[in-house]
Amino acid sequence: MSAAPPPPPFVVIIAGGTASGKTTVAARAAAQLGALLLHHDRYYKDVAQPRGHNYDHPDALDTARLVADLDALRAGQAAALPVYDFRTHRRQPESEHAEPTPVILVEGILTLADPALAARADLRVFVDAPADVRLARRVRRDVAERGREVGGVLDQYLDTVRPMHEAFVEPTKSSADLVLNGTAPIAALVETLVAAIAARRA
Amino acid sequence: MSAAPPPPPFVVIIAGGTASGKTTVAARAAAQLGALLLHHDRYYKDVAQPRGHNYDHPDALDTARLVADLDALRAGQAAALPVYDFRTHRRQPESEHAEPTPVILVEGILTLADPALAARADLRVFVDAPADVRLARRVRRDVAERGREVGGVLDQYLDTVRPMHEAFVEPTKSSADLVLNGTAPIAALVETLVAAIAARRA
Repeated sequence: MSAAPPPPPFVVIIAGGTASGKTTVAARAAAQLGALLLHHDRYYKDVAQPRGHNYDHPDALDTARLVADLDALRAGQAAALPVYDFRTHRRQPESEHAEPTPVILVEGILTLADPALAARADLRVFVDAPADVRLARRVRRDVAERGREVGGVLDQYLDTVRPMHEAFVEPTKSSADLVLNGTAPIAALVETLVAAIAARRA
Repeated sequence: MSAAPPPPPFVVIIAGGTASGKTTVAARAAAQLGALLLHHDRYYKDVAQPRGHNYDHPDALDTARLVADLDALRAGQAAALPVYDFRTHRRQPESEHAEPTPVILVEGILTLADPALAARADLRVFVDAPADVRLARRVRRDVAERGREVGGVLDQYLDTVRPMHEAFVEPTKSSADLVLNGTAPIAALVETLVAAIAARRA
């Protein structure tokens, strides 16, 4: 007599604007749940000319590969996740082995913008924060932590990040089951998210 | 037989958030009209401790003095405008002589927030721009042009500029006769403003 197969993983997709707090919330929730976390930005396509490149348009990402990896994991199989090198702006030859977990989180600004990816979600989350608060966080991070030049950070924000947000990210908020306030304390956001996942799985 | 007295000056008050474009629009319109332009930030009170000072609260400004100066000008008299030294954060002992002009412009973030000042306006204007666009402009100006440190600029924005904008500046938009789009080309804004003034004076 064989045991019943395990239920398929419960998939949580977490979207939101740049510096909304989504990655931090997703990482803490994943740690708390022992869940695999898939970052959409692993799936960037190779970039020939980084200067002026639009990293915020859906076409910049190999989302079909993410969907394929997620489908393998949902079927109980392992996946070979791509590894992106942000210095060379190219996918590295090696991959990273990942095993399915009962809950799988997927995060990225455009994770709810791709219909095939969004359709895999059992719970859709959008982390919302005012645009100026997000810009302040992004400038601080890029300049203070990553050593970038402030003029270049602002140019990129106004030229591509902001218009792509308006066109592709913000419209997905209305499709979310749960909108989290990205200006609330991070512990409160994690608690709310974990509780929402538990309620949906029950 | 004496000539009729000249009509009192036509007063235009121009408010809007930090880096909305209001000062540039006001300066260009004033140049085109040969109009006196009063900057509300001439009227800062002396600051004992600049670090952490809230420059964006109405109490930071000696608006009663601005109203008195404006009333003198409206009565056809000269005014002695205060001169503020932004290095020492104190009003200088000397003043600047100003004569009334047929149109007088008054600009500043809080110019529509003071009821006595706002009551002097024949035309109320609010220059409106999204908060993140304004923050991008402010960071660029303060860091690139004024040599300030980016972390301090962002701290000030989040600690005082942003909450004061929400509390005192943004609510005055609804009291404006004319809302200008601060992301439009500056020449178009000036043209619209000058035409609105001409229409109201006609």
